[in-house]
Amino acid sequence: MIVLMHAGASESEVQAVSDLIADRGLKPLQLPGGDHTAIGIASAISPDERESLADVLRSMAGVSNVVHVSRPYKLASREFHRASTFVSVKDIVIGGRDLVVMAGPCAIESHEQLMAAATAVKASGARVLRGGAFKPRTSPYSFQGLQRDGLRIMRDVGMQTGLATVTEVIDPHDVDTVAEHVDMLQIGARNMQNYALLVAAGRSSKPILLKRGPSATIDEFLFAAEYILHEGNDQIVLCERGVLPLDRTYTRNTLDVAAVPVLKEISHLPVIVDPSHATGHARYVQAAALAAIAAGADGLIVEVHPEPRRALSDGQQSLTPEGFSELMQAAARVGGAVGRTADW
Amino acid sequence: MIVLMHAGASESEVQAVSDLIADRGLKPLQLPGGDHTAIGIASAISPDERESLADVLRSMAGVSNVVHVSRPYKLASREFHRASTFVSVKDIVIGGRDLVVMAGPCAIESHEQLMAAATAVKASGARVLRGGAFKPRTSPYSFQGLQRDGLRIMRDVGMQTGLATVTEVIDPHDVDTVAEHVDMLQIGARNMQNYALLVAAGRSSKPILLKRGPSATIDEFLFAAEYILHEGNDQIVLCERGVLPLDRTYTRNTLDVAAVPVLKEISHLPVIVDPSHATGHARYVQAAALAAIAAGADGLIVEVHPEPRRALSDGQQSLTPEGFSELMQAAARVGGAVGRTADW
Amino acid sequence: MIVLMHAGASESEVQAVSDLIADRGLKPLQLPGGDHTAIGIASAISPDERESLADVLRSMAGVSNVVHVSRPYKLASREFHRASTFVSVKDIVIGGRDLVVMAGPCAIESHEQLMAAATAVKASGARVLRGGAFKPRTSPYSFQGLQRDGLRIMRDVGMQTGLATVTEVIDPHDVDTVAEHVDMLQIGARNMQNYALLVAAGRSSKPILLKRGPSATIDEFLFAAEYILHEGNDQIVLCERGVLPLDRTYTRNTLDVAAVPVLKEISHLPVIVDPSHATGHARYVQAAALAAIAAGADGLIVEVHPEPRRALSDGQQSLTPEGFSELMQAAARVGGAVGRTADW
Amino acid sequence: MIVLMHAGASESEVQAVSDLIADRGLKPLQLPGGDHTAIGIASAISPDERESLADVLRSMAGVSNVVHVSRPYKLASREFHRASTFVSVKDIVIGGRDLVVMAGPCAIESHEQLMAAATAVKASGARVLRGGAFKPRTSPYSFQGLQRDGLRIMRDVGMQTGLATVTEVIDPHDVDTVAEHVDMLQIGARNMQNYALLVAAGRSSKPILLKRGPSATIDEFLFAAEYILHEGNDQIVLCERGVLPLDRTYTRNTLDVAAVPVLKEISHLPVIVDPSHATGHARYVQAAALAAIAAGADGLIVEVHPEPRRALSDGQQSLTPEGFSELMQAAARVGGAVGRTADW
Repeated sequence: MIVLMHAGASESEVQAVSDLIADRGLKPLQLPGGDHTAIGIASAISPDERESLADVLRSMAGVSNVVHVSRPYKLASREFHRASTFVSVKDIVIGGRDLVVMAGPCAIESHEQLMAAATAVKASGARVLRGGAFKPRTSPYSFQGLQRDGLRIMRDVGMQTGLATVTEVIDPHDVDTVAEHVDMLQIGARNMQNYALLVAAGRSSKPILLKRGPSATIDEFLFAAEYILHEGNDQIVLCERGVLPLDRTYTRNTLDVAAVPVLKEISHLPVIVDPSHATGHARYVQAAALAAIAAGADGLIVEVHPEPRRALSDGQQSLTPEGFSELMQAAARVGGAVGRTADW
Repeated sequence: MIVLMHAGASESEVQAVSDLIADRGLKPLQLPGGDHTAIGIASAISPDERESLADVLRSMAGVSNVVHVSRPYKLASREFHRASTFVSVKDIVIGGRDLVVMAGPCAIESHEQLMAAATAVKASGARVLRGGAFKPRTSPYSFQGLQRDGLRIMRDVGMQTGLATVTEVIDPHDVDTVAEHVDMLQIGARNMQNYALLVAAGRSSKPILLKRGPSATIDEFLFAAEYILHEGNDQIVLCERGVLPLDRTYTRNTLDVAAVPVLKEISHLPVIVDPSHATGHARYVQAAALAAIAAGADGLIVEVHPEPRRALSDGQQSLTPEGFSELMQAAARVGGAVGRTADW
Repeated sequence: MIVLMHAGASESEVQAVSDLIADRGLKPLQLPGGDHTAIGIASAISPDERESLADVLRSMAGVSNVVHVSRPYKLASREFHRASTFVSVKDIVIGGRDLVVMAGPCAIESHEQLMAAATAVKASGARVLRGGAFKPRTSPYSFQGLQRDGLRIMRDVGMQTGLATVTEVIDPHDVDTVAEHVDMLQIGARNMQNYALLVAAGRSSKPILLKRGPSATIDEFLFAAEYILHEGNDQIVLCERGVLPLDRTYTRNTLDVAAVPVLKEISHLPVIVDPSHATGHARYVQAAALAAIAAGADGLIVEVHPEPRRALSDGQQSLTPEGFSELMQAAARVGGAVGRTADW
Repeated sequence: MIVLMHAGASESEVQAVSDLIADRGLKPLQLPGGDHTAIGIASAISPDERESLADVLRSMAGVSNVVHVSRPYKLASREFHRASTFVSVKDIVIGGRDLVVMAGPCAIESHEQLMAAATAVKASGARVLRGGAFKPRTSPYSFQGLQRDGLRIMRDVGMQTGLATVTEVIDPHDVDTVAEHVDMLQIGARNMQNYALLVAAGRSSKPILLKRGPSATIDEFLFAAEYILHEGNDQIVLCERGVLPLDRTYTRNTLDVAAVPVLKEISHLPVIVDPSHATGHARYVQAAALAAIAAGADGLIVEVHPEPRRALSDGQQSLTPEGFSELMQAAARVGGAVGRTADW
């Protein structure tokens, strides 16, 4: 950690900073500079200590800024875990050379609807079935999902089709129940900083699909992963799903496609992209999906509905089975162009 | 609701939209225009129907946009509830002519610390004591709060000082326990779209302090309030606490001070401001607090710590008791200048 | 245009709006609704009139919002100009099946430097040489470019290598001089709303490369193109170069890759992407470039410097000739996968 | 400047950084750390050198980040210019104890209109008359201003009323002409990074009103001021006018009211606020104006039109003379509450 003092900081202000660092049992090291003084801390600091120490230092007179030298999320960072992590969902491996596509409706509406969606996406090459049983919606008047009935439908359709399954969990006390019904648990974008839920997910033995919050920085996203890792679960797939847009006239969010190479570089966890929420309109989903793969994503999660116009949720951004089939063929070609396997 | 068609929409596309509206038992009304056609819906639509209908219409060929004529949150809107709502926390009324200030430490650290803070903020005129027992922190390595011990300390200090109390709840299953210990429940900014938590808060008999999420639009914020209202609890105080900043070099968030008159106009709920989180630095808190009052806020919630440099959380943005006393005196003067009572 | 009234708008307020519309010689049409009234304007309005009329209507008592039915930029919109526009830079056509890549250093530093860059990028398949003579820099202490000497070097290197050339113009009074030296004029992101410059560019006979401002919405971007089109110049290439990021820790901007399909849909102008400014770091440039092509971009503009570490400007984001060669080979593969020709 | 290396940086990477620093004639100083190495530069660096050096260092293998210790804008920063700067517009001093209010129409439409506005705002206490002759508008179909006729009207009305005058200049070649007609030159938000214009303004002898760009960080804003200062003109008033909003449903921009205390702390230049553009709606202007004064602004610039509904530009956000009179009385009370003089 390095403490940068203001240009006009007095000697006593500099000394007070050094003293406080020494009080904590650490070694302060004054660095000569031009108009400014900086004070380095020449000892290792535990993650538990560094956040509170930085906070205190920033409040001291004469201090301009406090800079971290190492990344604060030790477990999620590639700095201390060079090898890429592979995440297993049943027999499917995410993070290797094979692209993995998850697809299905926004919300589970009935056994017939989910089975129709599952059959269609499986035929086009998807390996994981997505579908919401508990739906977090902006409006309390929007469809909130079939809840536990939805979970049972998901389990049944998964068994009948042989697809792996993923669904969102929104209450920490539902983690175990949901985990009994599906193969992977999703933490949604709006719950990325719901720490009670992250801790519960970290204690689960199921792999976690962690979606980035719409205004979360890369560091905040990896801190959310760190909460899960800290509880002992390293089976985490990161999912970029669009960030806050400049306006919502044309797309619902802004796909941050460069987050893919950034996350792959600084973390060892696999990264997939959700082009459906990122754009919010079915007609832009394919372009966004192909961009994600070209940028190095390990897979996709796509909304597909047998009849989007009859969807109870997110019909606007859901692909038809035909649209999804076309996307998968294009995705296989682009995947091949960047060295990925996509033999569906 | 009005459906705007693209300039080149065909007659059959226009007809398909009209047909779908009629299928739902509503009256479509085609509006002649220049190059474009618009289709109005000349019947009342229930809130439950309108979101899914809009979603479907947006996915139809030839449709350019769907515009809502009335606000979608009926309960939080002033359109159908003209009179301002007063929120009672014990014997304190928020939303009237009196300014109400809540203050205290970010986190409850010990009985001594909370009592010192409570005594100081009461002496300066605060009427509600704030303090976190469950602390949602970006990093799992930061202090997570004293949890249930913190609740007990809060209850004791509230009783000993006569201050009303408010603390954050982060797990829907903790709502009842927390409500037994304090006078008001806080939903934090990161949980503004944690719907399980909003529903639980709506079922509580305690008043709710609802903080705006850092990237939440005004509509999303009022939708969160609508979730609570929908469960029957209308004792909600809205809290603006800063939105996503352009960068974080100088302030932690950007105080959206104009949200105060906007919210007061379109909703009947009281509005307070948190200048501590909005700026993130003790030295800007007073300016932000005075701005909030000048803009019409019904009160403030301010972080005050007996010794900010020893704080386990947010020391950087906490005022000292002396700084808070100065703020309160200035706030009383500015409040008086805009017709508010602040006789502390 | 449709005027939406508030729920509680009085009859006299509704009448006043109708009267004002009628005063302007237009036909108001009241639309019955549930709690609300809307007033449609059933006559064509010239672009000159509609902005000021909307502005006035929004200021009237009882008015909630004013909604445009058609897009306000007639010339840039595909609504009235279905066929895609092809832009010719010398013998190169942008907007057709062929991908076109522009490349070169951020700033022209010397004849040797530019010639080295030009030779390298030509060898890898670039057809247009980029390089700045007038450099708009955030800091007045950063290198401001070789100015007119730079223009002469650019002209000479263009002739010697046979590459077409593009450079930025920042002063409206320099447009003619710059146009005498290069084949295409660039309007930089920071000048996207410099209307004096847009008008001057619109009067030039040279094709224009128009970069999107970092906080410009799609509509604002197309309005800037409309200024140029309005003066009679339709040879405009739109360039997405990244928008305001959530933070700048990992990338300088956020590449809005979905802007590519959005712009291609609503405008007839070609669209290219600048992956260098969009990411700001050489190591993310290739991923961003491939994403752009996969999303349907008509080409790229890439910073390449013979020795990035000695660059006077933007060394951090410039590719080496080797890095560029690798990018071009990957780009050809991805281009092929999405049906584009890239036979370099 | 401090160079932070990645955790896994090799010794040869660290050495290469040290060597490059030494090559530039500066002293590298390796700082021992935990897992990481940092390299300080223990010599003063000229502003000209530091930007390009930082850029090069960031591109080197093993480098994680480069941190500036001192602020890069020496002339605009209070670090090297402790005393506050007073800006004189005729006999009016901005930046002292007296609040100064500028007011008038968005655009000059006629002598009668401007005179009516001037008379009204003077009667309420404004001391500077604002009004646009050259109007930068998003759409080429919006009113572009009376241009030179507008300048003459402004000069005449200024002389007849005794008010000082300010108007926007948008072309660097118009600076001298505009300066002959008015007392203060405005650089608009969209031109904040129009460097040709900033340099021309810096060479003028007139005081400059510099508006913050809607997506400009505090540092970018002060860099724009630095361009003007660098040319020798220190008579600059900074103007906060709202930044990019989360959405535009309720306000046109987000007033960054905390920018007032931030700018007053880190720069010696006066700061005023434009509540009209910041909110975009007449009914929120007063709240925003009072917030600005409570936060410490040195003054305001407000749009006032004798008949907002007939305005050719920005009628929606213009106050009536009566609304302005009310604002001024409230502003005087709030100003008094925070120790400012406002005896109008």
